[in-house]
Amino acid sequence: MADPRFFTRRGPFTIAKICELTAAVAAPGSDATSLVTDVAPLGTATSDDLTFLDNTKYLSDLGESGAGFCLLREEHAGRAPVGMTLLFSANPYKAYALAAQTFYAADESAAPSAYVAPGAFVDATARLGENTRVDAGAVIGPGVVVGSNCVIGNGASLSHCLIGDNVRIYPGVRIGQDGFGFAPDPAGHVKVPQLGRVIIENNVEVGANTCIDRGSGPDTVIGSGTWIDNLVQIGHNVVLGKGCIIVAQVGISGSTKLGDFVVVGGQAGIAGHLIIGSGAQIAAKSGIIGNIEAGAVVGGYPAQPLRDWHKQSVILARMVKERKSGK
Amino acid sequence: MADPRFFTRRGPFTIAKICELTAAVAAPGSDATSLVTDVAPLGTATSDDLTFLDNTKYLSDLGESGAGFCLLREEHAGRAPVGMTLLFSANPYKAYALAAQTFYAADESAAPSAYVAPGAFVDATARLGENTRVDAGAVIGPGVVVGSNCVIGNGASLSHCLIGDNVRIYPGVRIGQDGFGFAPDPAGHVKVPQLGRVIIENNVEVGANTCIDRGSGPDTVIGSGTWIDNLVQIGHNVVLGKGCIIVAQVGISGSTKLGDFVVVGGQAGIAGHLIIGSGAQIAAKSGIIGNIEAGAVVGGYPAQPLRDWHKQSVILARMVKERKSGK
Amino acid sequence: MADPRFFTRRGPFTIAKICELTAAVAAPGSDATSLVTDVAPLGTATSDDLTFLDNTKYLSDLGESGAGFCLLREEHAGRAPVGMTLLFSANPYKAYALAAQTFYAADESAAPSAYVAPGAFVDATARLGENTRVDAGAVIGPGVVVGSNCVIGNGASLSHCLIGDNVRIYPGVRIGQDGFGFAPDPAGHVKVPQLGRVIIENNVEVGANTCIDRGSGPDTVIGSGTWIDNLVQIGHNVVLGKGCIIVAQVGISGSTKLGDFVVVGGQAGIAGHLIIGSGAQIAAKSGIIGNIEAGAVVGGYPAQPLRDWHKQSVILARMVKERKSGK
Repeated sequence: MADPRFFTRRGPFTIAKICELTAAVAAPGSDATSLVTDVAPLGTATSDDLTFLDNTKYLSDLGESGAGFCLLREEHAGRAPVGMTLLFSANPYKAYALAAQTFYAADESAAPSAYVAPGAFVDATARLGENTRVDAGAVIGPGVVVGSNCVIGNGASLSHCLIGDNVRIYPGVRIGQDGFGFAPDPAGHVKVPQLGRVIIENNVEVGANTCIDRGSGPDTVIGSGTWIDNLVQIGHNVVLGKGCIIVAQVGISGSTKLGDFVVVGGQAGIAGHLIIGSGAQIAAKSGIIGNIEAGAVVGGYPAQPLRDWHKQSVILARMVKERKSGK
Repeated sequence: MADPRFFTRRGPFTIAKICELTAAVAAPGSDATSLVTDVAPLGTATSDDLTFLDNTKYLSDLGESGAGFCLLREEHAGRAPVGMTLLFSANPYKAYALAAQTFYAADESAAPSAYVAPGAFVDATARLGENTRVDAGAVIGPGVVVGSNCVIGNGASLSHCLIGDNVRIYPGVRIGQDGFGFAPDPAGHVKVPQLGRVIIENNVEVGANTCIDRGSGPDTVIGSGTWIDNLVQIGHNVVLGKGCIIVAQVGISGSTKLGDFVVVGGQAGIAGHLIIGSGAQIAAKSGIIGNIEAGAVVGGYPAQPLRDWHKQSVILARMVKERKSGK
Repeated sequence: MADPRFFTRRGPFTIAKICELTAAVAAPGSDATSLVTDVAPLGTATSDDLTFLDNTKYLSDLGESGAGFCLLREEHAGRAPVGMTLLFSANPYKAYALAAQTFYAADESAAPSAYVAPGAFVDATARLGENTRVDAGAVIGPGVVVGSNCVIGNGASLSHCLIGDNVRIYPGVRIGQDGFGFAPDPAGHVKVPQLGRVIIENNVEVGANTCIDRGSGPDTVIGSGTWIDNLVQIGHNVVLGKGCIIVAQVGISGSTKLGDFVVVGGQAGIAGHLIIGSGAQIAAKSGIIGNIEAGAVVGGYPAQPLRDWHKQSVILARMVKERKSGK
């Protein structure tokens, strides 16, 4: 079970309740009143625990799991050990997420005002919505507006920005500082005043130590429901659409615009002034130096269709092999 | 216009004044007494605003801009809409920067002493120059010297360093911590005391969450007028010359030395103990594992002349294509 | 000598004492009572200083060094200038590290309790071991346990974690925040509660602004004696073995496990759910998308044996050259 020093568990819940919460369907013959005590990973779950199987890489672990209850796709039922109660779901990971949220719900008592922890600094001209929490060491600058139900993590700093509702800013995040804007000049680079803001829409997560520079005139915008991982760099005037997933250590250069539901793999870099269409998927470590069509799946540097990049790798490996064998 | 919650505008200014400040020349027939109210990007500027055209990628937007005034190169005059007042400059972006600095000047009242915000921590043995500001959450360690007219951003930490004048340290920057110095050993890596400092010369910018380790014996040095973007890693004993431009997420390994005006594109990495000549330009995401000649323009990993790297990409793409077509 | 504003020197010490501390052997004819005043790099050491030669790249500098004393491998003795006292060691860098630790020892007076600097925030339910120091701006969250002889640097934040003894957390480090765990969903990504912890064993260093996410159910674990550089990303459920070396800006994705003494070069990325065997060495900027055998030396993206990657570079360079010459 989760370490009680850090987490508070609720429950137990019947599998009827679990199914109701997750839209899963219990296998025929299951006892709907069986009690589930906790959630746990496949490898450590016990007979009182609910687990899940989604990534088929772990399919062989299913048969050896001691879990009493498991969310999984119906097609994998045959791989489960005898006696395990199976809850079928087309999206077991999502179902597990919803179940786990129930067992380990955040405190639901909404505060009528914001809570500013000791050691946090909020400028007198900033505004914070209800039930928003500012953790120790965080700094909220002049004029900043933060919506309701937000968390501003330890040591994060916000300036020149407007933040929506249900936004989670992780520790050490930097939002709203000057973009990297200057006219290069041998006599001394000439700073271009950065006159825009950062606009963060609702339901956004911004990972630890990520940096989002404010716009140079236009705004930098993060669309609703977008999740950004740790140590990401977002340049000035960048616009991210809704529901994007930006993995750790990605860099997006100034004035580039992403559509909705774009996925960018870890350590990928996107040059400035580009358009990335909705639904595009960019492999980890890719280098993007041209526009990407909506729905395209690309990789490599310069990026190309992912299949072509894989073929290129195969061709190169063969050339190395042939050289070894003296051809 | 810029959000008045965050920015204070001055003006209006006549185009005669703008030309004086920026060394631009108004097109023949312009009325030198016309008043400019604000600066704004090409896409949103109105008839009272000054905009600019520099990147020719946006040339087609010029004809549709509603801007009343535009800084641009004379060769692009024919693309401007009728009625727009044109101010010719060989370097429109620099001219715009100077104009924007005038409209949105920082408060010029120099303070006779440093200002330490509530929630900042300055060691009693540190020294701060006049008109230097230390923002909330920043920490200035023992013995540190900071010059005049500097800004030390929220949550930044400085130790074992000497900082010049007119230096801007962005939020979350880490300067002066131990370099990654140890003798690897199966019985436990043996730490090498890091006995140098970080020396930052005048007019330097250090972007958010960037890390600059102190020297191991020699110093780590950042030359005057160098601009460093966010999330950059500078190892111990690195020396950067004057006027360098280091884009976000670059990593420079220990003891490497860059000349003056070197440009390093985003996410590039430079191995340790190398010499990078003055004026070298390193493409984004490059991997540098050997010395680079002054003035060289390189890309790829291992880096090569940029043209060769482009050719290599073309060759690889053709091989993939030929394989597809069964050749 | 090291800047006395930042460092306190001890000594002098006789070369007999230096040899005793470092297991070095003085060259025949050396006067064991000679006094060494300080340590210094090859290029700046004077006649009273001890220096070292390890990286043969600097062998040509040895002859011109003004150092009075030098730790080096015996095979390089002939390259030393006349009059320099030579101390032979099979591992000169380690020997120098030990000598330098003696000249610049940390204050050895162990405190019977932890020291929490002004401006640090320690939750009432957290526990700190003796002689542990929490620097200004650091935040220690509820339930966190930190062992003895640790340093928690400026502005670092720790939550949901258990930290061993002799651990150094550098400024701006983020430990224990939620991992990047959610079920992607067009209606809004569904957060998976992150119910694990971060376990950091003894004698670990975690570099500035590095992020270590807590486990999603299992724990994230950093093995004893592992050194992590700056700006590294460690995803949830990652397990690092003992004595690993993780260079700056590396990213390790969720649920990947490294054995002992794995070395990962700067800016390399490792995908999720992989196994990296003990002793593997991964070149800088590599992209790892499959398991790596113990002891393997790999590079490139996708990673391959390092020699093959070098051959590939040679082949590509030749193709570019042939294309130039019209073949």
